Amino acid sequence: MPIPSHCDLLIRGAGVVSVHTGEIVPADVVVSGDLIRAVTAPGVRIEADRVLDADGLLLAPGYIDAHMHIESSLLTPAEFARITVRRGTTTVLADPHEIVNVAGREAMAWMIEQGRSPSQTMLWAVPSCVPALEGFETAGSRLTAEDIADMLGWEGVTTLGEVMDYRAVVAGSPRMRAIVDAARRKGVRLDGHCPGLSGDDLGEYLWAGIDSDHTKNTPEVAVEKARLGMLLMLQEKCLTPELVGRLHELPVLPDFCLVTDDLAADAILERGHLDHIARVALDAGLGPLTVLRALTLHPARRLGLDDRGVVAPGKRADLVLLRALEDPTPVTVVCGGRVVEDSGAPAAPAANPFADSVRLAPLDEDDCRWRVDLPDGEHTFRALRVNPVDTYTEPAEIALPVRDGIVEWEGRTALLAVYERHHGSGRRAMAPVVGFDLAEGAVATTYAHDSHNLTVIATDTSALRHAANRVIGSQGGICVAVTGRPAVHLPLPVGGVMSAAPAPEVADGAGAVREALHAWGWRHRNAFMSVSTLTLPVSPQVKLTDMGLVRVVDRAWEPAVI
Amino acid sequence: MPIPSHCDLLIRGAGVVSVHTGEIVPADVVVSGDLIRAVTAPGVRIEADRVLDADGLLLAPGYIDAHMHIESSLLTPAEFARITVRRGTTTVLADPHEIVNVAGREAMAWMIEQGRSPSQTMLWAVPSCVPALEGFETAGSRLTAEDIADMLGWEGVTTLGEVMDYRAVVAGSPRMRAIVDAARRKGVRLDGHCPGLSGDDLGEYLWAGIDSDHTKNTPEVAVEKARLGMLLMLQEKCLTPELVGRLHELPVLPDFCLVTDDLAADAILERGHLDHIARVALDAGLGPLTVLRALTLHPARRLGLDDRGVVAPGKRADLVLLRALEDPTPVTVVCGGRVVEDSGAPAAPAANPFADSVRLAPLDEDDCRWRVDLPDGEHTFRALRVNPVDTYTEPAEIALPVRDGIVEWEGRTALLAVYERHHGSGRRAMAPVVGFDLAEGAVATTYAHDSHNLTVIATDTSALRHAANRVIGSQGGICVAVTGRPAVHLPLPVGGVMSAAPAPEVADGAGAVREALHAWGWRHRNAFMSVSTLTLPVSPQVKLTDMGLVRVVDRAWEPAVI
Repeated sequence: MPIPSHCDLLIRGAGVVSVHTGEIVPADVVVSGDLIRAVTAPGVRIEADRVLDADGLLLAPGYIDAHMHIESSLLTPAEFARITVRRGTTTVLADPHEIVNVAGREAMAWMIEQGRSPSQTMLWAVPSCVPALEGFETAGSRLTAEDIADMLGWEGVTTLGEVMDYRAVVAGSPRMRAIVDAARRKGVRLDGHCPGLSGDDLGEYLWAGIDSDHTKNTPEVAVEKARLGMLLMLQEKCLTPELVGRLHELPVLPDFCLVTDDLAADAILERGHLDHIARVALDAGLGPLTVLRALTLHPARRLGLDDRGVVAPGKRADLVLLRALEDPTPVTVVCGGRVVEDSGAPAAPAANPFADSVRLAPLDEDDCRWRVDLPDGEHTFRALRVNPVDTYTEPAEIALPVRDGIVEWEGRTALLAVYERHHGSGRRAMAPVVGFDLAEGAVATTYAHDSHNLTVIATDTSALRHAANRVIGSQGGICVAVTGRPAVHLPLPVGGVMSAAPAPEVADGAGAVREALHAWGWRHRNAFMSVSTLTLPVSPQVKLTDMGLVRVVDRAWEPAVI
Repeated sequence: MPIPSHCDLLIRGAGVVSVHTGEIVPADVVVSGDLIRAVTAPGVRIEADRVLDADGLLLAPGYIDAHMHIESSLLTPAEFARITVRRGTTTVLADPHEIVNVAGREAMAWMIEQGRSPSQTMLWAVPSCVPALEGFETAGSRLTAEDIADMLGWEGVTTLGEVMDYRAVVAGSPRMRAIVDAARRKGVRLDGHCPGLSGDDLGEYLWAGIDSDHTKNTPEVAVEKARLGMLLMLQEKCLTPELVGRLHELPVLPDFCLVTDDLAADAILERGHLDHIARVALDAGLGPLTVLRALTLHPARRLGLDDRGVVAPGKRADLVLLRALEDPTPVTVVCGGRVVEDSGAPAAPAANPFADSVRLAPLDEDDCRWRVDLPDGEHTFRALRVNPVDTYTEPAEIALPVRDGIVEWEGRTALLAVYERHHGSGRRAMAPVVGFDLAEGAVATTYAHDSHNLTVIATDTSALRHAANRVIGSQGGICVAVTGRPAVHLPLPVGGVMSAAPAPEVADGAGAVREALHAWGWRHRNAFMSVSTLTLPVSPQVKLTDMGLVRVVDRAWEPAVI
């Protein structure tokens, strides 16, 4: 059967990159519908509705993101797809655990529905840990093993999302066992999250059937995981020259994927999506073919997608045209057989069924007081020490005076406060946070992993109240109020974690927030993640939820007073 | 959760080989039931029902054969399992297309049932081409697309077996399209067989969704296939230094599997199974880690078996203990958690439901005459030229006298004769075969790919008749009758293709057949395959079926007279 006489798209003259052999071979690529119909010798005679002249360019498979959260972009799924597909990301496996922590099964169904984008393939992971750390925080919803078993059967769902409560798995918690067993019965993949886990504890996690990890590890622990067949999913913070050097020392370079995990709209528009991670990987010393395989072949395999990840007849026409292997940002992207237009209009704003998710009255002065059951005098409190590089916190100590059951923190430390915002419980917790030299001001956010309670960092009560009340007033968002500067406020009214606005507008808002945080003195290289993970009780070492301080590695309460 | 205090098997002190990183790390391996419970630091304290002291040995995953035919061993499945598992083959994907060509669906069901061995995992491919070349040969059965769709749902079935009629696929034959579509709808893998296929024809084959090949190709064609993501399954004849050299020139060494395809009982007992192929691969210049990955990780992936192919907690306890990576024959094998005993008794002979498959009366003198519709005089006939190395045949010519409508071949050439033996049609075809200098004698066999009609090669009529009638008398088998030597006769009464006898007895018989063929002058390095593929009309270039001569590459009849 000869190649048909007519096709929808003909890509002429590119050097086709084989992710299997690493060769670059000149060929014409014939696309019919959403499939590659033929990869044939240059100069094929065929009628085509559209011809892409790719002379001097390389043609490679579209990029596949095996681990990410759309909500981290602060965008709704269709708008996320619009701005990432043009960077070459043609398939994502999304774990919507932010919005599902807020609004449960209904939110998962809504995300899947919103994600039926015309081109980018969105596959879905059911969040395994809602809440992230059962018993240590108050989320808007709670998924039971039965919920998860049911949701794993929904269309588009392929995976159990990152099992973050790795301590519960290692300890054999009945709840986590039931969830894991539900996924194993369904035959889906089980994604992991287990920073630093090693030795027999890692063995128990593997025994449970969880076989990937996208967290940051020491090179030795990363290699231990790879050795046992755990798939490394390397995000920006993992891609250090130390890790790359260690991987290159191995007799065999193990397969791994490059993933984005959490990238906000402004970062995507400025730096890129998987193409940005690819550049980081190249800078860290990985070879361009290794990087390309980690964007295509390996994630396709991980996701069980035999229909993509290689340029060959019968595969999905998800393709990127590149200037060079060393330059992973595509010149042109083809997704599902269609040429992606850079000028595409923003996705129409979606109706927002999660517009009343911030169930808190405006804070009054008393809400800003840190009340303790301690006698008057100076006490030593457990503080969280933040750093400018990663999202780990170190336990620190700070002595503060107490008078009439109120800690006098103003002028002495910044305060981290978490207000439960889903159920109207009035529950709240506070702790000092040290490590940055902050001006007078505050940041308040309802985007705070994973329960997304209202989280505020403040150096004084008035800024705390001002920032928090702006966010409550907009039914979610992020507000930075620094004394002497205009407050910066990014509303996130979709469940308090996403905006329905077009990406450039959200990116401007996010950029302004980042700038305001820096101006305030919060000098973290990823200020967003640094703030929003102070409440994530599965991220080492000490975190604060609405219920109190958590010692993450021991999965235990940390006393507020030493 | 600590490692339990008791286990079934403890393997102490081995160097555990990681197929992912290539490292060898000392560890104790704890086995519970059929699973690896833990891989832990040496010196673990645990009660174990059995301890294997593996000091000084390497521990690697059990070997997985992604393409093979049990019938080629001439053994029934349980007996095959018994002698191959001790060589390290713990999983096979078997395509029973020999017996299914004889006895159809019933034979497939019987094989699956027989293959429920206590330890070796047998997965199954549904034969896609029964008969191998529709319209060009008479098999005992014919599978329709509906049959195949149904059988793809049977327990243990994971794959559509090698699509040998690649010309029909490339030409868009409705029958092959229906079969391929049935498999694609079921979501199973489609295995290929396409020697030398390249360019746009290869593209059409890939377009059909067939993405592996285990046939011999030139290094260039093999690389072309690998480039497009077709999985190379390398059997003994493929593993040449030329191919290995070409693969090593590539920027990335593509993944491939090592497979056995067709190995007879005597070869297995003398040289080994996948361990033998591994030695051939090492001798051809492949590195030991590459070889090990091609025996474990890559076939596990191909078969979609996440539960094996790596030594890690939670994986199936299919393990081999090796003296060195360079010596792939195991010292000890663990399969499904049990230590394989070398002294295991032969499998009990299975009841044989296919004991009346040779539906032919004994040949009389007239049956041995080559009748043609030609006038008296000399005519030039198409002959098959065989060679001592592979199973390809070259078209040759030979002038032979015809008298009274009978070709006078005796004393001038060896004759190849194929007698339809399934339906009592009386159909037969004959052609000269040249290339070996044969003594007076004949070989007759009902094991003749893929229709397994009675096939005889003879230098004289009396030997032809003698050998054929011995085989008819035993309801199948192979007989070599060389004048002046005692006839050698290996009965194969299970469908005319397998013996129910213990492996050593079958191996002795097969060895004696090989020796007799060599003594006769049939000096092929794999005499069995050389004889039994003369009737395989998908194996280039010219083959003979009960219906006549086939020009394989054109998928056309070849005239008997030039």
